[in-house]
Amino acid sequence: MREAHQDAVARVSEERLWRRHMEMARIGAIPGNGVNRAALSQEDIAARKVLIGWARDRNFEVGVDAIGNLFVRRPGHDAAAAPVMTGSHLDSQPRGGRFDGVYGVLAGLEALQAIDEAGVKTRRPIELVAWTNEEGGRFPPCTMGSAVYTGARKLEDFLDVKDNEGVALRNALAQTLAATPELAQRPMKTPVAAYIEAHIEQGPLLENAGKTIGVVTGIQGLRWFSIEVFGKTDHAGTTPLALRQDALRDAVYVIHALHELTRDATDTVRFTVGRMLVTPNSTNSVASHVLFSVDVRHPDPVTIDRLGKAVEPTARKAAKQCTIKVTPTLRDDPCVFDPGVISAVERASNELELRSMRLPSGASHDAMYMARICPTGMIFVPCEKGVSHNEAENAKSADLAAGARVLTAALLELANKDE
Amino acid sequence: MREAHQDAVARVSEERLWRRHMEMARIGAIPGNGVNRAALSQEDIAARKVLIGWARDRNFEVGVDAIGNLFVRRPGHDAAAAPVMTGSHLDSQPRGGRFDGVYGVLAGLEALQAIDEAGVKTRRPIELVAWTNEEGGRFPPCTMGSAVYTGARKLEDFLDVKDNEGVALRNALAQTLAATPELAQRPMKTPVAAYIEAHIEQGPLLENAGKTIGVVTGIQGLRWFSIEVFGKTDHAGTTPLALRQDALRDAVYVIHALHELTRDATDTVRFTVGRMLVTPNSTNSVASHVLFSVDVRHPDPVTIDRLGKAVEPTARKAAKQCTIKVTPTLRDDPCVFDPGVISAVERASNELELRSMRLPSGASHDAMYMARICPTGMIFVPCEKGVSHNEAENAKSADLAAGARVLTAALLELANKDE
Repeated sequence: MREAHQDAVARVSEERLWRRHMEMARIGAIPGNGVNRAALSQEDIAARKVLIGWARDRNFEVGVDAIGNLFVRRPGHDAAAAPVMTGSHLDSQPRGGRFDGVYGVLAGLEALQAIDEAGVKTRRPIELVAWTNEEGGRFPPCTMGSAVYTGARKLEDFLDVKDNEGVALRNALAQTLAATPELAQRPMKTPVAAYIEAHIEQGPLLENAGKTIGVVTGIQGLRWFSIEVFGKTDHAGTTPLALRQDALRDAVYVIHALHELTRDATDTVRFTVGRMLVTPNSTNSVASHVLFSVDVRHPDPVTIDRLGKAVEPTARKAAKQCTIKVTPTLRDDPCVFDPGVISAVERASNELELRSMRLPSGASHDAMYMARICPTGMIFVPCEKGVSHNEAENAKSADLAAGARVLTAALLELANKDE
Repeated sequence: MREAHQDAVARVSEERLWRRHMEMARIGAIPGNGVNRAALSQEDIAARKVLIGWARDRNFEVGVDAIGNLFVRRPGHDAAAAPVMTGSHLDSQPRGGRFDGVYGVLAGLEALQAIDEAGVKTRRPIELVAWTNEEGGRFPPCTMGSAVYTGARKLEDFLDVKDNEGVALRNALAQTLAATPELAQRPMKTPVAAYIEAHIEQGPLLENAGKTIGVVTGIQGLRWFSIEVFGKTDHAGTTPLALRQDALRDAVYVIHALHELTRDATDTVRFTVGRMLVTPNSTNSVASHVLFSVDVRHPDPVTIDRLGKAVEPTARKAAKQCTIKVTPTLRDDPCVFDPGVISAVERASNELELRSMRLPSGASHDAMYMARICPTGMIFVPCEKGVSHNEAENAKSADLAAGARVLTAALLELANKDE
């Protein structure tokens, strides 16, 4: 590692990084050390303002694009060179933790600040991005900001998505953008030289193996569906069961059948029904409409394709009295990261004498979309017992700092590679 | 029938009764001719005010008790005599119709007004009651107003019940009572000589048999439960299924098992899961908590007892990974109406030359609780295809008027019986 780069890495502050995590964790804090910071909510806006404040303290440029992705830029000395980018997201699950997403943003800011404090000149600019609505918990689907930024999906396709309270994304987005009117407007899909995202693992592998750094090789594929069951509401006391079109009863049959479809002795398939809305949702009335989500994932392209294709026919066959509508809402094939970025992360770990291992990601990340437009990789750090999407999510301050150091070294290598 | 009574019955106005139904149907109107008039909502308050206005136009006394049950009274000439009472409810299901409940209130008002216009003197007072929260759609359980009035349940037990938006019944009730501060306060459980409730059948028997009047013999028994499944939220992409405590998955297993428990070749058992709330309710997160309702009914006391007792062990056995909590929320044994009131209704039908049949009620009604404190009966009129708890609920104006005439005659017979 060059001496200047070593100097930058040495300026990564574990104390400052932890303190910023705790400050962000207060925004949307919920009992049990958790965070509820829904995308495009007042809490999300507050977190954005805190990040913008920290970036301005170092005189970094801040911009925003049409879907609210926030960009913090430290210029390079080659005006024509595309930036090296890092980042993650500030939004959380409804009952999420203090590290999922926000770690990648704060580690990226720590890297930019350490490089800046060390006075290291880079050929390429280094940019930090905070993607809008990575979680999809309020407005499905997830990884929306990076999907739109990379051109994989159109912004217009998402504007009418509504949250559980009926608020359209269009309005929540407008409110978020209006809260920071001073930011420079950024176009979508500007050229990017490379992208590295730091994240907690959200699984137990690193902890179980006693490793500090996960060198992420790719992301498993997924299929999301929204399944609607259309029944008829009736009086629960008078209507014979044979005459009913009970949407909740059929939803239960469909979910049962999908459990059977995805049964897997190796426990590799991930199948989840996490969201269900019942209408009219009254003890006394047969349900007329049920909407539920389906999330299926697998690392093998052939298996995820087979399972994804089987969801609709399996659901149709299982419904007994109601009509159903199956809408695919997200489709990501397994993604393989760039060997050059994987090597840069692995090399940085080795030079910093950190115990690392290669592993795939079980969760989706914005890196999946970035991999479509530029060489991409990820850095994982351990989280306690692999718990995530849960208030109890936890990580060690030393591991977070180690990840930020690897990120700093890898960003510098990529930003100065062709010099 | 006495001549004076015949005169009163002749003054029942089909046109006025229908017009009042249509006026009430505008309060909380929803698309498809439906009504959403939740108990203790602004719409409920508006409906109460309209009813009070009509009662005042005839100089009837209006009173209210601590749970908001409204009483309209036409005095008798024997100051010591307990009243004959009629009524039903003004609240509706979230996607309810224009006749369920409100018919019994308007038919009762029509009877009082017809008797008053005819100048018929009665020994006993005749009272009309509009019970609070019969549906239980917003604040479970149902038939709350009559349960409290008759002393079957205590008001205090219900004050902390919350609706789906987290509003406590205590606050909604205070708001409702504050909207009509001028009303006289009524004590609970004052003596009642007899109670007759008019209602649409909410089932297909009268229509299929070509009858106008149902002489109701009793009400089937029911058991309500609130079942909670306690799991653990986790990331849907990373957590192996074997390590999950997925509350929604276990809820599906439990509901499936309860379907098996209540399977009945004669299609007499009524089993409904109509309400389900999922936490955190996100596509991407394993559900940590699911709450759902169970409603089981049967006319036979032995069968409903057996089924009710089997719900909790069946649910416990079906849950695979989560702990569950089963809370009984309502328990009503099958009820048999008073032979004297049944005869009075049947006699009135015959004297008015209306086609009638005896039948049990599939739905619960406030009459069930009134039967515990006084001789009680009900009058059913047909509704289209038996559809109820549905926007498409419909009834014929002529049938509604016929029921009001039977009610008028039966009330007069009971109010003057011991003269």
